[in-house]
Amino acid sequence: MGEESKITIGNKPLIDYIVSLAILFNQGIRRIIIRGSGDKISKAIAVYNALKERMGDAVKLNDVRIGSENRRGRMVSYIEIVVEKVL
Amino acid sequence: MGEESKITIGNKPLIDYIVSLAILFNQGIRRIIIRGSGDKISKAIAVYNALKERMGDAVKLNDVRIGSENRRGRMVSYIEIVVEKVL
Repeated sequence: MGEESKITIGNKPLIDYIVSLAILFNQGIRRIIIRGSGDKISKAIAVYNALKERMGDAVKLNDVRIGSENRRGRMVSYIEIVVEKVL
Repeated sequence: MGEESKITIGNKPLIDYIVSLAILFNQGIRRIIIRGSGDKISKAIAVYNALKERMGDAVKLNDVRIGSENRRGRMVSYIEIVVEKVL
């Protein structure tokens, strides 16, 4: 039922996020948002790059959103990378 | 004549990049690519956020590109934030 899902990048090894993404796509999720904020922004992009390298044309970049949000009174930058499974 | 310009984010203070962007826009450049790679990716987004905060509707986000490139045998992630001056 859920066509969209979100993965927030944290401290786990990069490969763990690739595995999670692959599982979600296999479960029928079509669109996944890879979200990283603060010092996890570059890791979010690294996750996307590693996913793209492994899945190639089976996955496509749908959108990249950037911005900042207030977190406990401090402005923190974020990135949201929207990837879609190509049917 | 140059309608497009590029600023690569490095080690200078954030405000320096904001000033450079403002000067370029004032010189008639319509589109500027803010580029950050590796550990400068989050700073590139912070520069965009700070620019947006100061210039508001006078500037709009045109595109965000992400990817990786080979640098001396090592894959490095990058982001390119394309901002446009609203006429």
